[in-house]
Amino acid sequence: MTARRLRLGMVGGGHGAFIGGVHRMAARLDDQYDLVAGALSADAERARQSAADLHIAADRTYTDFHDMAQRESARPDGIDVVAIVTPNHLHHPIARAFLDAGIHVICDKPMTRTAEEAEDLVAAVTASGRVFVLTHNYTGYPMVRQARDMVLSGGLGVIRLVQVEYAQQWLTTAVELTGRKGAEWRTDPARSGAGGSLGDIGTHAFNLAEFISALRCSEVAAELSSFGRGRRLDDNAQVLLRFVGGARGALWSSQVAPGNENALRIRIYGEQGGLEWEQETPNQLLHTPFGEPIRVITRGGAAVLPVAARASRVPAGHPEGFLEAFAQLYRDTAKLIHAGRDGREPDPDAALLPGVHDGLRGVRFVLAAVESAGHNAAWVAVPPV
Amino acid sequence: MTARRLRLGMVGGGHGAFIGGVHRMAARLDDQYDLVAGALSADAERARQSAADLHIAADRTYTDFHDMAQRESARPDGIDVVAIVTPNHLHHPIARAFLDAGIHVICDKPMTRTAEEAEDLVAAVTASGRVFVLTHNYTGYPMVRQARDMVLSGGLGVIRLVQVEYAQQWLTTAVELTGRKGAEWRTDPARSGAGGSLGDIGTHAFNLAEFISALRCSEVAAELSSFGRGRRLDDNAQVLLRFVGGARGALWSSQVAPGNENALRIRIYGEQGGLEWEQETPNQLLHTPFGEPIRVITRGGAAVLPVAARASRVPAGHPEGFLEAFAQLYRDTAKLIHAGRDGREPDPDAALLPGVHDGLRGVRFVLAAVESAGHNAAWVAVPPV
Amino acid sequence: MTARRLRLGMVGGGHGAFIGGVHRMAARLDDQYDLVAGALSADAERARQSAADLHIAADRTYTDFHDMAQRESARPDGIDVVAIVTPNHLHHPIARAFLDAGIHVICDKPMTRTAEEAEDLVAAVTASGRVFVLTHNYTGYPMVRQARDMVLSGGLGVIRLVQVEYAQQWLTTAVELTGRKGAEWRTDPARSGAGGSLGDIGTHAFNLAEFISALRCSEVAAELSSFGRGRRLDDNAQVLLRFVGGARGALWSSQVAPGNENALRIRIYGEQGGLEWEQETPNQLLHTPFGEPIRVITRGGAAVLPVAARASRVPAGHPEGFLEAFAQLYRDTAKLIHAGRDGREPDPDAALLPGVHDGLRGVRFVLAAVESAGHNAAWVAVPPV
Amino acid sequence: MTARRLRLGMVGGGHGAFIGGVHRMAARLDDQYDLVAGALSADAERARQSAADLHIAADRTYTDFHDMAQRESARPDGIDVVAIVTPNHLHHPIARAFLDAGIHVICDKPMTRTAEEAEDLVAAVTASGRVFVLTHNYTGYPMVRQARDMVLSGGLGVIRLVQVEYAQQWLTTAVELTGRKGAEWRTDPARSGAGGSLGDIGTHAFNLAEFISALRCSEVAAELSSFGRGRRLDDNAQVLLRFVGGARGALWSSQVAPGNENALRIRIYGEQGGLEWEQETPNQLLHTPFGEPIRVITRGGAAVLPVAARASRVPAGHPEGFLEAFAQLYRDTAKLIHAGRDGREPDPDAALLPGVHDGLRGVRFVLAAVESAGHNAAWVAVPPV
Repeated sequence: MTARRLRLGMVGGGHGAFIGGVHRMAARLDDQYDLVAGALSADAERARQSAADLHIAADRTYTDFHDMAQRESARPDGIDVVAIVTPNHLHHPIARAFLDAGIHVICDKPMTRTAEEAEDLVAAVTASGRVFVLTHNYTGYPMVRQARDMVLSGGLGVIRLVQVEYAQQWLTTAVELTGRKGAEWRTDPARSGAGGSLGDIGTHAFNLAEFISALRCSEVAAELSSFGRGRRLDDNAQVLLRFVGGARGALWSSQVAPGNENALRIRIYGEQGGLEWEQETPNQLLHTPFGEPIRVITRGGAAVLPVAARASRVPAGHPEGFLEAFAQLYRDTAKLIHAGRDGREPDPDAALLPGVHDGLRGVRFVLAAVESAGHNAAWVAVPPV
Repeated sequence: MTARRLRLGMVGGGHGAFIGGVHRMAARLDDQYDLVAGALSADAERARQSAADLHIAADRTYTDFHDMAQRESARPDGIDVVAIVTPNHLHHPIARAFLDAGIHVICDKPMTRTAEEAEDLVAAVTASGRVFVLTHNYTGYPMVRQARDMVLSGGLGVIRLVQVEYAQQWLTTAVELTGRKGAEWRTDPARSGAGGSLGDIGTHAFNLAEFISALRCSEVAAELSSFGRGRRLDDNAQVLLRFVGGARGALWSSQVAPGNENALRIRIYGEQGGLEWEQETPNQLLHTPFGEPIRVITRGGAAVLPVAARASRVPAGHPEGFLEAFAQLYRDTAKLIHAGRDGREPDPDAALLPGVHDGLRGVRFVLAAVESAGHNAAWVAVPPV
Repeated sequence: MTARRLRLGMVGGGHGAFIGGVHRMAARLDDQYDLVAGALSADAERARQSAADLHIAADRTYTDFHDMAQRESARPDGIDVVAIVTPNHLHHPIARAFLDAGIHVICDKPMTRTAEEAEDLVAAVTASGRVFVLTHNYTGYPMVRQARDMVLSGGLGVIRLVQVEYAQQWLTTAVELTGRKGAEWRTDPARSGAGGSLGDIGTHAFNLAEFISALRCSEVAAELSSFGRGRRLDDNAQVLLRFVGGARGALWSSQVAPGNENALRIRIYGEQGGLEWEQETPNQLLHTPFGEPIRVITRGGAAVLPVAARASRVPAGHPEGFLEAFAQLYRDTAKLIHAGRDGREPDPDAALLPGVHDGLRGVRFVLAAVESAGHNAAWVAVPPV
Repeated sequence: MTARRLRLGMVGGGHGAFIGGVHRMAARLDDQYDLVAGALSADAERARQSAADLHIAADRTYTDFHDMAQRESARPDGIDVVAIVTPNHLHHPIARAFLDAGIHVICDKPMTRTAEEAEDLVAAVTASGRVFVLTHNYTGYPMVRQARDMVLSGGLGVIRLVQVEYAQQWLTTAVELTGRKGAEWRTDPARSGAGGSLGDIGTHAFNLAEFISALRCSEVAAELSSFGRGRRLDDNAQVLLRFVGGARGALWSSQVAPGNENALRIRIYGEQGGLEWEQETPNQLLHTPFGEPIRVITRGGAAVLPVAARASRVPAGHPEGFLEAFAQLYRDTAKLIHAGRDGREPDPDAALLPGVHDGLRGVRFVLAAVESAGHNAAWVAVPPV
């Protein structure tokens, strides 16, 4: 029998916000959720209008997330799970409120601004027994999961190198001075945290590197720059990485690289072969076995592993994209929540979901890189979690 | 105020079917539809189980489309629109039944097997005043609409050439003999109509050529082949095209081209420049103004026209794909239906929706190509509609 | 012991000409030739100055090719071989003159304007026992030779399809009216022959299709266009191809396709796999075995066959290009001439050299296509040679 | 009047060597040189046979470079210029010998093993007044020169970032233990110097970064690895770069990255736009003006600057490659030598030739990176020259 749709709430994501709409489309795609409640904006009128446009009932439209957490947890038909899509500084208090109310959480990244907040969430998740998923959405791409499985199965041999980069162009000029909201808070330490590009996109790159390589980064040496006029946070980061076991890596995140729209790219090399994947052409994965021709592995095509097939919706050649990958996290989260409710073992793909520990690692990565940059790129440890 | 979600029914698309799931995801993505009724299979148990899995109520689960059309039209909360996702031979009777019942229709392609059926639908649509949308889904891609607007605005000068191709590989072997259902009916003249690759994918290519070029093809000369063992319909078609006004073109459709997953590609050349677009990398459009460097126009990026921006959901660099393009047809259809109900002028994008006349043209293209092939590739007219 | 350098003469190729310089660089690259004589222009002063700039002695600088053929054949140190790099209408008389004088010939394409001229050259070559090489230079690319060998070895199974195209942009406007010499004669039937784009580039495409597929085209159906204002020869050709044995193909040649610089591209599909090659990225060949991931075969890389390795000069990743491929014909020609002189069996690669029969086939292809176009694209046979 | 061909000698480059053949083809392509003398091997028989195969007269075949320098300088028809194509440790003594003999030098890279040797060559070049060209051959590519000019003309605005990488795969396994000569000396500190991948390819990347950006790198922080079993020199280097004026950069060189044949790639970003160039597709340069579509600038195509046009031999779409770029250094060197002899101002392109100061910078870069790596990637200055 088909499981019922989960009742979803959302905090943040009112009119004009980008990532809220992404979460909603992701939630809808596989028909596992009904969006029934929301505190979409701190502005009451904007919250009301945004909710109405989303068919959210007036009595489940909130302007205060504490209020929402309490009232929803008190309803027999209260939300099962909340999606947090606010600026970074609000992730912690909101997540905390809903976890404390016994509500599962899907939270955007980076998880928090500080290590203390992050550690507090780790504790809160553990104490609550609730599901906490951090939307490192790029792990939802089938070819990313394929890559991880190929590494884990030993097909590349011992991994030596991880070269990851995430380049954008949108902060090339000081757009945060022009009233663009998403740019304002992302360049504001109070709301964004210690990292600029590091937090916004570097954490994705870092997560992807660890996710695919299945290695843990032990220390970083970072050069951070703020090229934008008057910019207080980094808009460019060049980071050397050392991994436990001896692999080496480099991470480049930039938001001042003209021509790069959302150029997340990873290359991993082992003793017996390599892999290359680019987010802007996500349906293919290059496999470069040493001494053999390059192979183009396509989503849905020959050589696709089960883990990738399970994360795919349409046949090869019918491109899937950003929303489908994002939706995969929602789909896997739904399965995980249903399994928990039914007392079943979670689906194996649940183990792929980025969670609170990944969030803590991301925060520690940002803080370590910032500390390194403050010491002229000296090596700084990224503690294990 | 936000319009209510439209009530959607579906005929065909039970467990195991490909295109039914695509329509459902497309309908969900923009939250304009609720799927509330279905005749998902002629097999009663399969219909029941498929519907249950889709949260369709038992009393709106049908096994007969006539029954569904009548009962839904009689309900106060009956469906607004039906999606027809069956094999080709059923498109006509089903569409007819729902149009006669006053229900809007979204129908998969090719529209019908014969010109008579197609003409009958044209008449039925006119008589009913209902919306009829044919899912030539590739017209939903933002960069395809951008291309059309660039042609119409005269940026390429007078169009001289249209080179379009749609290559796949999945019929390289005689897979229809192995029990694969989608291959069985697509290679069966009784269910598929006179065209094999021509009907299945050639109609898409033909539609795309006319859509982007804004030219009408006047005659065709076709070489059809059936390479698969025992295959009765073409699995490869090479077609010369003549357009009204003097432009020339070539269309290649193939399902026996190893390495091609879903390789729909179009190139258009005018006196002052050209355009190239490939479905497998749909977020970019190459513009080749004569005497200047090639420009890469990206979805959401610089140089995007309003028509493309309106058909896009996420920023540049966050790839959209097949489902988003498909969803665009559903979104535009919803707007068209709401406008009609409210007595408003339809949105300008409504004019981009492929409809019953495009369906008739597609059928006539297939029949003309088949006739040409029967006369050693002599030129055969494709009558205007 | 190293063979001495061959003494090379040249007819045509004075200052300002494109292809003459190409031949000279090609001849130099592998150090098998010394350019020692030339009739580089019919204009005496231009001939003299061009020759001087090329270090050709004054007493071996000619303005008349008959004179050159006779005097060079009479010298003890006379040229071994002549390169003919004039407009098309002069190929026949010049080749004839040098063959009659016992001098080997390397001739640019298309070989002649008429079938009669071509047949006469076939006879002359046979009678003379001299080497005659037609510079279908694209067959000199290592990956093209690799492709041919892969087809011949059966790796693709029985060939079904050959899609070949050669697109350029340089005749988009009526540049022949602006005094550009290469455009003038190429668009003049008296000097170019019956084919415009067909002769200039279509013959290359046709040759490549037969070379790689190892199939013989038996008939063609052609649609020819002259889009350029006042243009008398085709600048665009769309041609359907039938091959002996049942394979089908399509050939597109165009010189009015903006954005295409020298876009020669071929795709071949068999029952078990396909190949794709593009001249502008000549160092790679895509191999698409059905049911397996696409493989990128690179010049000098893994999976390279001996025939390709022999035609390569630098390691993988160090791109070779147009000149190297052209040079390969010169290198193989030198080996063939030395073998003949020494009474040795020719090198196996000599069999790959395009010769007088390929030239005749090219002429017949052009004439058949022109005849077809004159009969509304009716099928016209391309007689075997 | 055409200048006479220069008389060229060569040291190193006997049978089986890779780079010697490259230099010879480069020298031949534009017909500016005659190879007339050589000490091609320290092995007398190999030297003799190699020379004979190259048509070098027996009396100008040497086994000792000192002997060659003295005897050639004493001949009235002695060589004008010598090409040094030996392992690194011999560059200094050989260059010294020929400079002292008044003979111009073309030397492979890296220039020397030590800073002392490099500085000695700087002094020797100055003292001799001879031309010294270091074959950082990638600067010979037309699109590389185009990139430099675009930066210098201010089209990108102030430069912020230089991301350069040079990845190969050929040392993935310990191939130097298998008797492969080129691998043996390149992994031997005594013959290669302090850098492994750093010296062999990192110096190219470093040179390219400074050449295109027209910026001077002031300090480096380097992480060096030796992944190959028993390998004594780095086979992977990740280097952070700081440039005078505030630009930042990263350099990655690797010879253990499977799938990378000769993947030299550079990306440069300024306040107003960026450039991307990859050596394996050298005929195109991506220009990414901020806020506009990406432009594909092609060699020979629209938007080509004079500096690139002068370094090109065939039209757009006819790919040039590695040898043509290498030949450009030889061509420019010949022009420089002729100008010097004739007392003329050198051609402006002469200023683009990499010389002894670039060689010194490369050596200093290697030494600084090695020193940095020895201090846990601390920043180390690269002194100006």
